[in-house]
Amino acid sequence: MKPPLPVPGRHREDPPVPGAPGEPAFIASLRALAAHPAARGLDDDAAVLEIGGEAVVLTHDMLVEGTHFLPGADMADVAWKLVATNISDLAAKGAEPLGVLLGHMLGPDDDRFVEGLEEVLEHYGVPLLGGDTVSGGPPRSFGLTAIGRATHCPVPSRGGAKPGDAIYVTGPLGAAMTGYEALRDGAEGDSTAYRRPMARLPEGLLLAPHVNAMMDISDGLLLDAARMARASGATLAIEAGLVPLAAPANRLHDALRWGDDYELLFTAPPGLALPVPAAWRIGRVEPSGAAPILLDGTALSEADGLGYQHG
Amino acid sequence: MKPPLPVPGRHREDPPVPGAPGEPAFIASLRALAAHPAARGLDDDAAVLEIGGEAVVLTHDMLVEGTHFLPGADMADVAWKLVATNISDLAAKGAEPLGVLLGHMLGPDDDRFVEGLEEVLEHYGVPLLGGDTVSGGPPRSFGLTAIGRATHCPVPSRGGAKPGDAIYVTGPLGAAMTGYEALRDGAEGDSTAYRRPMARLPEGLLLAPHVNAMMDISDGLLLDAARMARASGATLAIEAGLVPLAAPANRLHDALRWGDDYELLFTAPPGLALPVPAAWRIGRVEPSGAAPILLDGTALSEADGLGYQHG
Repeated sequence: MKPPLPVPGRHREDPPVPGAPGEPAFIASLRALAAHPAARGLDDDAAVLEIGGEAVVLTHDMLVEGTHFLPGADMADVAWKLVATNISDLAAKGAEPLGVLLGHMLGPDDDRFVEGLEEVLEHYGVPLLGGDTVSGGPPRSFGLTAIGRATHCPVPSRGGAKPGDAIYVTGPLGAAMTGYEALRDGAEGDSTAYRRPMARLPEGLLLAPHVNAMMDISDGLLLDAARMARASGATLAIEAGLVPLAAPANRLHDALRWGDDYELLFTAPPGLALPVPAAWRIGRVEPSGAAPILLDGTALSEADGLGYQHG
Repeated sequence: MKPPLPVPGRHREDPPVPGAPGEPAFIASLRALAAHPAARGLDDDAAVLEIGGEAVVLTHDMLVEGTHFLPGADMADVAWKLVATNISDLAAKGAEPLGVLLGHMLGPDDDRFVEGLEEVLEHYGVPLLGGDTVSGGPPRSFGLTAIGRATHCPVPSRGGAKPGDAIYVTGPLGAAMTGYEALRDGAEGDSTAYRRPMARLPEGLLLAPHVNAMMDISDGLLLDAARMARASGATLAIEAGLVPLAAPANRLHDALRWGDDYELLFTAPPGLALPVPAAWRIGRVEPSGAAPILLDGTALSEADGLGYQHG
């Protein structure tokens, strides 16, 4: 038996800590401190702060060894994922990245970390602006803050989906899942999609003026769609057969619940000519019904296990 | 014997990790990725990014259990320190805080963390804008990004000290040291200055238009003054007898090397009427000499142990 890999999705709700109130209760207690409109109720992919007539988009995520990446992972991959997943949050806002701040816990593979960091920053054309280096761990942990400038106002949010809108994704789902499984099993197969996710930055910039709602799919299509539905006060009716797959067809229902693909999920008026090379229509926004999701006509909510659960 | 407290200064150079290149070597390798002028060569308290005609000031720091705070510390104090030390970096830039992003590792005392966070955010009038919550540890680690808007341009840096300038500090040094020692020893004595440092935010805002160089004293007066000296291409001549103390006189030389006081260190033309209620002149900027520091006429550099070293 190989040891299980950690929960793969950074954004996914993290497992509960004994004696702690858990992530949902903790976030609920933080909301009282986040009344500023820029915080968007802590419900969006990023904060949007107006400064000097510009909308500055800010996002911060952490990666923890053993929770979000495997001990022994190539630190170049960790650095890549740390940056790419934050850039993905900017993409969902249609924001052009301006720079990142790194919170770095020192360790033995720091040369690989710097190599991966250089690759990903060069890929997105983003400079390192500052941060902090610390000792501590194991487990090591890393934080990244990405700063961007919105290219279109109003800045897209999760909350704008309108009944009648078509629902789209920017690309096939499931590649991170199969990549993770190949890595876990030491099997043949390409794990690149899991180790080095690509943020849909060009697509986000092109789509921002046209969408009613947009977010990145970090925690699985169904779970993230449910969040969009709740934020919008609507129901998202999704046809499973329309969802593009980068995994075998018999893995469809896993792929709908798996995260880490970082495609964009968005809604727009039906029939609108979309400014991106490819987007898959997967359903339609309905008035708020019994549940946030209708999957092939079946009502589903978070209690039905919309996100991937590790056994 | 009580167990030793961890290295108290967050900003202080962290202890080396076995097999790792160490913080100075790591930071040197990051500099190549930080060529953007906003990064200020990674040598300043914060990044300064021009957006929409405003100068946005950005800083990020981490606190790690066992390295920067004691296991068992009141998490309300940890939350206070996490925010206050970042606000101190904004103060050093004369920047008005606009908000913070929190990277939070869940744990059993999260209710106390939220209480401390609420107190410190209310004290500085700063909203929580977003962030991330994760599982992991122990040790727990936390990150905070503070965003501010500069109230005066050019934004003060460490690098502007000019020969002939007077050198000032905004308040007495040593209170964090004695507070730390009281906490460590379980002795009588007030540990508030160590547990709940106060950022000199009003002073930073008032001083920014008048100073030639400014920074906060996080790692000890002599070590931080040496950094200012090197960034400015000058020597800082300090008279120990002029340094205001919040510790017994026989601890003067410890207090000069201890951090965590978060007073501001700044230089300004001599004789300038200063707009703050109190500032102590502690020396004079000289042309660059044999060492970055002259302490009572004795040349000192980093190799002489300018910062507090735990035994």
